[in-house]
Amino acid sequence: MSKLVGSAIFGQSGGPTSVINASASGVIQEALKQENIVQVYGAAHGIRGILEEDFYNMREEELRELELLKSTPSSALGSVRYKLKDFNEDDTDYKRLLEVFKKYDIRYFFYNGGNDSMDTCNKISKYMQKVGYECRVMGVPKTIDNDLWATDHCPGYGSAAKYIATSTMEVYHDANVYDTGMITILEIMGRNAGWLTASSALAAHKGNGPDLIYLPEVSFDVEKFLDDVERIYKEKNNVIVAVSEGIKDKEGRYISEYGSDLAKTKDAFGHAQLGGLAATLANMTQERTGSKVRGIEFSLLQRCASHCGSLTDVNEAFMAGQMAVKHSVKGETDKMVAFEREAGDQYKCNIKLINLTDVANREKKVPREWINEEGNGIKQPFIDYALPLIQGELVFPLEDGLPRFARLNKVPAKK
Amino acid sequence: MSKLVGSAIFGQSGGPTSVINASASGVIQEALKQENIVQVYGAAHGIRGILEEDFYNMREEELRELELLKSTPSSALGSVRYKLKDFNEDDTDYKRLLEVFKKYDIRYFFYNGGNDSMDTCNKISKYMQKVGYECRVMGVPKTIDNDLWATDHCPGYGSAAKYIATSTMEVYHDANVYDTGMITILEIMGRNAGWLTASSALAAHKGNGPDLIYLPEVSFDVEKFLDDVERIYKEKNNVIVAVSEGIKDKEGRYISEYGSDLAKTKDAFGHAQLGGLAATLANMTQERTGSKVRGIEFSLLQRCASHCGSLTDVNEAFMAGQMAVKHSVKGETDKMVAFEREAGDQYKCNIKLINLTDVANREKKVPREWINEEGNGIKQPFIDYALPLIQGELVFPLEDGLPRFARLNKVPAKK
Repeated sequence: MSKLVGSAIFGQSGGPTSVINASASGVIQEALKQENIVQVYGAAHGIRGILEEDFYNMREEELRELELLKSTPSSALGSVRYKLKDFNEDDTDYKRLLEVFKKYDIRYFFYNGGNDSMDTCNKISKYMQKVGYECRVMGVPKTIDNDLWATDHCPGYGSAAKYIATSTMEVYHDANVYDTGMITILEIMGRNAGWLTASSALAAHKGNGPDLIYLPEVSFDVEKFLDDVERIYKEKNNVIVAVSEGIKDKEGRYISEYGSDLAKTKDAFGHAQLGGLAATLANMTQERTGSKVRGIEFSLLQRCASHCGSLTDVNEAFMAGQMAVKHSVKGETDKMVAFEREAGDQYKCNIKLINLTDVANREKKVPREWINEEGNGIKQPFIDYALPLIQGELVFPLEDGLPRFARLNKVPAKK
Repeated sequence: MSKLVGSAIFGQSGGPTSVINASASGVIQEALKQENIVQVYGAAHGIRGILEEDFYNMREEELRELELLKSTPSSALGSVRYKLKDFNEDDTDYKRLLEVFKKYDIRYFFYNGGNDSMDTCNKISKYMQKVGYECRVMGVPKTIDNDLWATDHCPGYGSAAKYIATSTMEVYHDANVYDTGMITILEIMGRNAGWLTASSALAAHKGNGPDLIYLPEVSFDVEKFLDDVERIYKEKNNVIVAVSEGIKDKEGRYISEYGSDLAKTKDAFGHAQLGGLAATLANMTQERTGSKVRGIEFSLLQRCASHCGSLTDVNEAFMAGQMAVKHSVKGETDKMVAFEREAGDQYKCNIKLINLTDVANREKKVPREWINEEGNGIKQPFIDYALPLIQGELVFPLEDGLPRFARLNKVPAKK
């Protein structure tokens, strides 16, 4: 263990989740406790805040509010989508980062995000190594998409899955209510990996879920889909379908783009019209079956509904943040915190560290063998995998019957 | 008090809510206790189940499951949208109803629904009076729309309002996360009355809500809307707008129909394209501002999200069901159960009974003076009105981290 004394900076990046702030809480609270860490900074809008010297002094925050971050959705410090160039081609940003790191004596860098953010984290780590600036770099994973490589699962996924499964069960009850036929199409996030859409199978496992589930891991055939829906509609007079926003045909074209052919046309006001995937499929289904069809997008709600958060997920997200700090203080660097599930019936996840190089820019998809042969349903191994991740309910403080979210002071760091 | 011994039938009608089953639980549990009530039947799909002699013997249900109805969304017995004709013009259905009532000695009829259902209830009540068949008829209100006449509020509204306010707060956090500009348009239910959309103001009251709110009570001017959005976007770089699905222009045309002009055109597959109101406004806003714009529909979720139910609402819904039975056994008939709020700082609602004639086919809208002069915001009297209705959180049983909804036996009544 090598001792490194200096300040720490933490940033959030990419699409927010219900629990990314729980990780922030873990990083910040743990960093504030560490003797070797002098100042703890929170970067506004991730890497951009560092480049622009726009960050907050986290010692100015109240402990109560840092605790409330555990139940506050979205990225409290602000997020960013900013892709760093390869430093061998253009090192402008890196030089600026180094300048800022030196100015504030930043020796600990924690970055919280998904695939792209781990790429950023990895590049910064490698650059600091190259120029010989000692800085411990640790990635803290988050993504509702659950597509990060080499970790059992990602913080953020469990809560999104719990929300999707719960809402799907509720919609199932609602959509079954009339004696006239009805087809409901649920559009769920996930461009390349179907983990979120698969979580609707947890509702089906409870007997209140979709009849058909389509993930982007299997190429989507519109005619086959319409046949599937029509067959079940004839049987049951009621069909619920879950589709991933990222489904593509065998030519690799997004089905959601089928609708946008229309974008060339304009409505009465001269505005281009764009419909989502659910609307596109709903229209096709209505034409084929003549039934009443409703398309529902879970939209942003699935990634920010902290009121339906999984306690397991919140606790793990917090722990991931804490452990990033603890391990870095002990001397680890250039790693991402990851989860490893213990074998056995009882769910237990341990922390392991993965090389940033190994995780950056790789995607983990739903194994093909967890999807049924026809490509329209989910098999038991997925249920066994996902069910432990949605256990426990987050108890969060309320004020006037509404969530009391964290309110940070956001005192700018002294320049 | 006149004693009337016979059987009871209960039906659910119209769009389901998070708490219509809580009212069912109240009616059924109370009816099962009453000495004067012989059998308790639950009609499948409301009035249609009665016409078709399709109903269940509620004595065959387990108490535990009847209790679970309190946290089970949607209409457990099935719903229906069926408009009875005027019996002076066509009494076919009424004769059939009378036949069924006589066959099963039905002397108590409880009907749970909104405006149209109270119209059904009223017609049946008047017909039974006309033909001299003694049957006590009681309406039990429900509607997320909160538009029933002569009651302080309707069961179902508080839970929907709580879900909308909570989700709006969460979306507020999510939509504020990037430093690039963003406009978010939330589409909320309510064709003619803006109660649901107004509930987003509860989120604004907590500092996490929409900048602009448009209800159907005020005619909608697209250009004025675009000016409003653009002005705030220039000020804040981030705008959240809540719009009611029912907003209309001054000619009375639904804004949601503006998009459907396009329905005449077809996409590459020959399918007609239809977008919702949120999508239509999002497109217009994008054209005007050039900003990133996202349209979100709360869709069915707002009426079935029992996981975010208001305990006040659940308890009142249950009580409304109970009281309908108690009052009818005491001799009341031809009434709807309604709520009357006590004066004073402490929220308390008492039950009162309203003549069905007075409630059928009338709509209660948001008072114009509760909306700001510009027609794009909500004033304090609404907050004072709505806040008590969303208080308390429903604690519901879970199984594997997901809601354990009621499972009824639905044993058909002996014919």
